[in-house]
Amino acid sequence: MSSDKEFVIGLDLGGTFLKYALGTPEGNLLVTKKRSSKGHEAKEEIFGVIFKAIDELLEKAKVLGGKVIAIGFGSPGAINFETGTQIGETPNLPQWIDSDIRGEIENRYNIPVWADNDANVMAFAESRMGAARGYKYLIALTLGTGIGGGILLNNEIFRGANYAGAELGHVSIDFNGPQCNCGGRGCIERYASATGMVQNYCAKKNIDKKNVNTELIFERAREGEPEAVQTIEETCNCLGAALASMVNMFNPEIIVIGGGVAEAGDGFIEKIKKAVQARAMGPALRNLELVKAKLDNKAGMVGAICMAAEMYKKSYTTNKAV
Amino acid sequence: MSSDKEFVIGLDLGGTFLKYALGTPEGNLLVTKKRSSKGHEAKEEIFGVIFKAIDELLEKAKVLGGKVIAIGFGSPGAINFETGTQIGETPNLPQWIDSDIRGEIENRYNIPVWADNDANVMAFAESRMGAARGYKYLIALTLGTGIGGGILLNNEIFRGANYAGAELGHVSIDFNGPQCNCGGRGCIERYASATGMVQNYCAKKNIDKKNVNTELIFERAREGEPEAVQTIEETCNCLGAALASMVNMFNPEIIVIGGGVAEAGDGFIEKIKKAVQARAMGPALRNLELVKAKLDNKAGMVGAICMAAEMYKKSYTTNKAV
Repeated sequence: MSSDKEFVIGLDLGGTFLKYALGTPEGNLLVTKKRSSKGHEAKEEIFGVIFKAIDELLEKAKVLGGKVIAIGFGSPGAINFETGTQIGETPNLPQWIDSDIRGEIENRYNIPVWADNDANVMAFAESRMGAARGYKYLIALTLGTGIGGGILLNNEIFRGANYAGAELGHVSIDFNGPQCNCGGRGCIERYASATGMVQNYCAKKNIDKKNVNTELIFERAREGEPEAVQTIEETCNCLGAALASMVNMFNPEIIVIGGGVAEAGDGFIEKIKKAVQARAMGPALRNLELVKAKLDNKAGMVGAICMAAEMYKKSYTTNKAV
Repeated sequence: MSSDKEFVIGLDLGGTFLKYALGTPEGNLLVTKKRSSKGHEAKEEIFGVIFKAIDELLEKAKVLGGKVIAIGFGSPGAINFETGTQIGETPNLPQWIDSDIRGEIENRYNIPVWADNDANVMAFAESRMGAARGYKYLIALTLGTGIGGGILLNNEIFRGANYAGAELGHVSIDFNGPQCNCGGRGCIERYASATGMVQNYCAKKNIDKKNVNTELIFERAREGEPEAVQTIEETCNCLGAALASMVNMFNPEIIVIGGGVAEAGDGFIEKIKKAVQARAMGPALRNLELVKAKLDNKAGMVGAICMAAEMYKKSYTTNKAV
């Protein structure tokens, strides 16, 4: 047994930035950084960025008198959690598909790696260090350019049969609704993502989308502008409808709403909650919580660290029984 | 060790009938019977029917030279699987709520009892003895007066945090759609249950619902009547939309469609499959099967037997490791 302190690295890959952190196995962040992810370049370039980040954090760990026992990784798209390989398409990282995330990093550093979808990792973060601590059945939505979804069932990330589940942005609320990029119609992402809100607002005002963002819509709503107020009402109503279907299916204990849009204030969360309560079934609504995410910008790093630490513990402790 | 043959009893309680069977632990039925469930009478009356059925099957077991090791029970509404107690409302068994199913039966017979929601039990039956043998991730829909749903994840029934999940009939496909009894709007049950189909068809024909059922609609469709053909097209399209959302969330390996409506023929199943393929996301569609249920009328009894047998094995064998 070494008396070294044990650290875990968490990496959160996006189309624009790689965010990376050194933390304790419990998910407390000691160092956080970010750098350009070179998302549109070749796989090798992206791995180059990742290696630089890890090198930097390994150095930090040494300075802090400890060693890195595990690395966690969150990435857009579907990831085979067993193999640590990217399988789904990732529009903002077009050449990242099929990347052997675990293989490339383990080969270089000989530290065990676990990789998962970024929305799964964020849901995990909220369950371990955020707004959903202590809850075992959790639905997490991240409202950004799109809508990301993560699900915990019986305290574990739910991924589906082929790691393609939990696509909560692609729950349809109108089978005759607008065509979605995913192939479906009327997906909630079309209505309640930042993109969907801006589109809805601009259509009401008959103005160009340029220079319009959700902050502006929320600001104008606070000033009482009817189109802005209505846009927000409609967003919450649509989210309530999609979430009610999810509640009837998953019967979660808690729903966590994160992402830029959710930052608009408690009124927004309250409105969504009311819409869910008006639509979902009684037995599944009993004791259901609906709250704002706590970790937001850091959720990816915290979740990657917590996930890797738990998997390390399960895989490398003497008694493998859980 | 006794050399007695081991049997399991399966009970399937409905508003009109109690169906009951004696079977092998593998789910092969040896004796099947049914009697009036006295669904609208008091709890004690319903338990009276259940006790008569069990007495009858215990006698049969003796004649066959064996003993009953476990009893499985399927009932409408939500059931606390840990305690074997009815918790949800059951419109067709209005006084059945809060029934201590396990307690009453175990007290009388001293045989271990497991009780679960009937749609869960039917999904379990299809996974063990029906159309979904060997699949670990399964969604089962039963299209009847309403729409029942059962979900298997990683080979186990998924019930949600409070046994209120898997209400697949109450996934909304139109957030502005017609009000559903459940409190929601545009639930798939409103469109694609037998009730929904008949309503849709009669509205198109501007006729009274009396004497119209789904068999008639399917017959007229075969004769080429446009309203009947259109009703079926619309039903399949709506089912496809609801199932696509479920596929994007649960990423199942197989979808099993049962109930009277599904008996209409393979064309119906093919149409639903096409609608799902047109709407769900690529990664979740890969290798997805969509098939007709095999056990239908017997699914409740078979599932109750298989579930009780598996739980008995887990609970009462020397090595409890699974």
